[in-house]
Amino acid sequence: MAKVPNDPMNLAPVGRPCCLGDLARALKLELFGDPAVPIDHLAPLDKAGKGSLTFLTSTQYRRFLQSTEASGVILHRDMLSLCRTNALISPNPMLSFKQAIDFLVPEVPMGEPIIHPDAVIDVRASIEPGCQIGPGSVIGADVVIASGCVIGPGCVIEKNVRIGSGSRLVAQVFVGHDVRIGKRCFIQSGARLGGEGFGFAQDGPIWHRVRQLGSVQIGDEVEIGSNTCIDRGALEDTVIEDGVKLDNLIQVGHNVRIGAHTIIAGSTGIAGSTKIGSGCQIGGMVGIVGHLEIADHVFITGRSMIAHSIHEPGVYSGGLPSDSANRWRRNSARFRHLDELATRVYALEKTVRNNS
Amino acid sequence: MAKVPNDPMNLAPVGRPCCLGDLARALKLELFGDPAVPIDHLAPLDKAGKGSLTFLTSTQYRRFLQSTEASGVILHRDMLSLCRTNALISPNPMLSFKQAIDFLVPEVPMGEPIIHPDAVIDVRASIEPGCQIGPGSVIGADVVIASGCVIGPGCVIEKNVRIGSGSRLVAQVFVGHDVRIGKRCFIQSGARLGGEGFGFAQDGPIWHRVRQLGSVQIGDEVEIGSNTCIDRGALEDTVIEDGVKLDNLIQVGHNVRIGAHTIIAGSTGIAGSTKIGSGCQIGGMVGIVGHLEIADHVFITGRSMIAHSIHEPGVYSGGLPSDSANRWRRNSARFRHLDELATRVYALEKTVRNNS
Amino acid sequence: MAKVPNDPMNLAPVGRPCCLGDLARALKLELFGDPAVPIDHLAPLDKAGKGSLTFLTSTQYRRFLQSTEASGVILHRDMLSLCRTNALISPNPMLSFKQAIDFLVPEVPMGEPIIHPDAVIDVRASIEPGCQIGPGSVIGADVVIASGCVIGPGCVIEKNVRIGSGSRLVAQVFVGHDVRIGKRCFIQSGARLGGEGFGFAQDGPIWHRVRQLGSVQIGDEVEIGSNTCIDRGALEDTVIEDGVKLDNLIQVGHNVRIGAHTIIAGSTGIAGSTKIGSGCQIGGMVGIVGHLEIADHVFITGRSMIAHSIHEPGVYSGGLPSDSANRWRRNSARFRHLDELATRVYALEKTVRNNS
Repeated sequence: MAKVPNDPMNLAPVGRPCCLGDLARALKLELFGDPAVPIDHLAPLDKAGKGSLTFLTSTQYRRFLQSTEASGVILHRDMLSLCRTNALISPNPMLSFKQAIDFLVPEVPMGEPIIHPDAVIDVRASIEPGCQIGPGSVIGADVVIASGCVIGPGCVIEKNVRIGSGSRLVAQVFVGHDVRIGKRCFIQSGARLGGEGFGFAQDGPIWHRVRQLGSVQIGDEVEIGSNTCIDRGALEDTVIEDGVKLDNLIQVGHNVRIGAHTIIAGSTGIAGSTKIGSGCQIGGMVGIVGHLEIADHVFITGRSMIAHSIHEPGVYSGGLPSDSANRWRRNSARFRHLDELATRVYALEKTVRNNS
Repeated sequence: MAKVPNDPMNLAPVGRPCCLGDLARALKLELFGDPAVPIDHLAPLDKAGKGSLTFLTSTQYRRFLQSTEASGVILHRDMLSLCRTNALISPNPMLSFKQAIDFLVPEVPMGEPIIHPDAVIDVRASIEPGCQIGPGSVIGADVVIASGCVIGPGCVIEKNVRIGSGSRLVAQVFVGHDVRIGKRCFIQSGARLGGEGFGFAQDGPIWHRVRQLGSVQIGDEVEIGSNTCIDRGALEDTVIEDGVKLDNLIQVGHNVRIGAHTIIAGSTGIAGSTKIGSGCQIGGMVGIVGHLEIADHVFITGRSMIAHSIHEPGVYSGGLPSDSANRWRRNSARFRHLDELATRVYALEKTVRNNS
Repeated sequence: MAKVPNDPMNLAPVGRPCCLGDLARALKLELFGDPAVPIDHLAPLDKAGKGSLTFLTSTQYRRFLQSTEASGVILHRDMLSLCRTNALISPNPMLSFKQAIDFLVPEVPMGEPIIHPDAVIDVRASIEPGCQIGPGSVIGADVVIASGCVIGPGCVIEKNVRIGSGSRLVAQVFVGHDVRIGKRCFIQSGARLGGEGFGFAQDGPIWHRVRQLGSVQIGDEVEIGSNTCIDRGALEDTVIEDGVKLDNLIQVGHNVRIGAHTIIAGSTGIAGSTKIGSGCQIGGMVGIVGHLEIADHVFITGRSMIAHSIHEPGVYSGGLPSDSANRWRRNSARFRHLDELATRVYALEKTVRNNS
């Protein structure tokens, strides 16, 4: 493979080139600079050159602001004084940049609303008008798919599933029987919704499966990443409320409830029966023990282990940053005797107090 | 999506309603209370109302026992004095509740044993009578599938695989060549059995794949969760013994052996060539280093990192619970200097000893 | 299932039996011992008996060297004095053993280069000669698949993808639109290449998806494990350079770049926009925070959390090994007060200094 140079060829070209002034008008943003400068591609700030529109949200990228050759930067008014090029002022630069993308890069239409002849659809399923069903998809009895859905290739939808209008299953998704999916959901390839929950009864050495009688309910505008798994409930349903965003390779155990507009990064795991509030932000590789309650508006940084319920909004952490192997080894060896160390400190305090 | 109320509408209805006395007789459980009370749904204890059967296993839920309006609770004799409603006494309430589900909610039959015309089956494969093969499944040469198996839609079974009677592959499962699967196994969607192990020989900067000549052997009554991966062995087989239960998104490296009736929760990873004993219970997100030996009857709590062999049965832990971000930051900054702190404490002890 | 005995029946038989002298000549290795001894299977050192070829790379297995009944051991010259059986001397025993496998066990040919009639291939796709396309695979418009590729069953390849010659997608792989895959890549079942990156703009409580305009570029001789996910870039491409080896269930966020010949073990997660150098070795379950830079030739041991950029080559660690649950509980309780403990130690030092 040819090496990938850091030049605009790799950066997102604009489908509908325009000048910065047009863009400012369309997005209703105040412009400082030259309205006539043409915009023909989009780029991150550290790589933005002539012709590019970019944005600044993170303080980490602020250092690129003074030297950028971007033709336009969407930024917060507080940053304007640092900016040497044309600026569009936004109270929410990320949102404005999203709107710029939608304006400059027209979405490719999904293609014809066709039910592919190689899809296998039960005669008792009901597919409303305007749906696209990909080849190799298998749709069971009594499934109802509302208008405007796209079911990509290779999906398996078991019986009695309901999918709300405008939802998209990208490809190779599994949806177990009786699962409910809301409107305008976006579910990526390999997601598994409604697998059997992990419930067993022990009988001597043997584990007997406890049949899982619940299902999964997914709200509107939920997004679910690739290979993420959401198990069906044991007696109640597992519930993912409206607007929840789940990244890739997340494990959601049975009976879990995730509150509206909570966002969770990749490789996180949530054990069974835990309830997470709404408006939470949970980092990657977080592990949450079962049967807990997490309040609304809780932020959990990446790699934390949550072993107790969290009743107050706030920021919680739990990952130890790595170190050079040598130093780590010495410190972690000490950790194995931390209790003893603490005991010795308290004894020492007593001795010193008595001595003086 | 309408919000999901916590009412019995969401709870598991009973397919075969009966009265509590009938249930007690069928399960051979001692009944304290009214045998004539009707049971029409199943519910967890914290949500169980009139008409429901529920159970108590966890001390965490004991507080709901005094106020529950359940029509019947399966519980241990020790809990009887705390119970204000009708009680069924069981030495193993979880197992009895599992039996109650099997009695009250008849299983939906799997459907006709049909080989779907859209399955692609090699002429040299042998499918015994009473099997169901879903559309889009691809079955290679010299595969033998014993009687009563269900191979759901979209599975890929490479050549020379053997699957024992009564096993079920839910959907979209991958089974690599030469893999052996026992009887009555339950393998969920997206599981990958017999992928090539992660073995390379380094040659200067280059990594060359070492072809993996082993396979995977899976015993009887093994259950494997969604998107779990079990790699084939390098020279020997990777072995999952009888009755093992694996949750979702677990990684099992090449040459691993997992002993009979061991149960492992989601997102755990086991590196190559590690041997785990039988009757172990391993929590979620545990990481086990390669080339270790774990004894029988070892319990490992969630999020532990196992870096050394474990020779004694017992309970092992390794996850640090999270804290408020501020406190965590202060403590984890101190951890980076823990070795120095310990050294200073020992020096201080010496000084104090000399001073006194 | 019959229990699996540890006998040579389970070990890898040799397709082309030969004597040790022939093997030494073919591999150009110096032989100490009997050139006429026959080799009929391959085995790990701890299980190698009569007729077997084995190898020694790890000091952990050195103890088996004195008692092994193997007919031949490939080892480093430094180990020769410890070896009681026939030895082949190699400066790189793992590489020589890989070559022995290639010599002794001829690869099964891939089967006819057939495009299966049950594959669904867009008329605008271009499949070069000598390709094999499995049943149920779906290939979009303007896809170009170079000669000698194997696309296994159930793959979904969206429009405008390019795949270099000699690459293999095992089964049920997803390749999103516009993704580039190099030559001689090996991509296992359930891998997801080019899913939509996890990018959102917050608008009050609502998260709006930011359309991801980048793609994924994968170099030559890249290997990607089962169920691993690589997201497409936001504006630039996510880039996996030549010779990178990724294990199973790895999460690679949008805009990540992984340098040539870096190798990463299973269940690791790399958050968005992080750049990893070439020649790195990263253990399993490592979590790497977003927007970092990791230098070339960095080794990271399993379970580390990388929260800061690493500018120097070297070995880095971050996982705390588990302990008995009781001892762990005591130590981790002390960790919650480590900052206070350190403060008390410093106060104590001051008191002692003043007292003396």
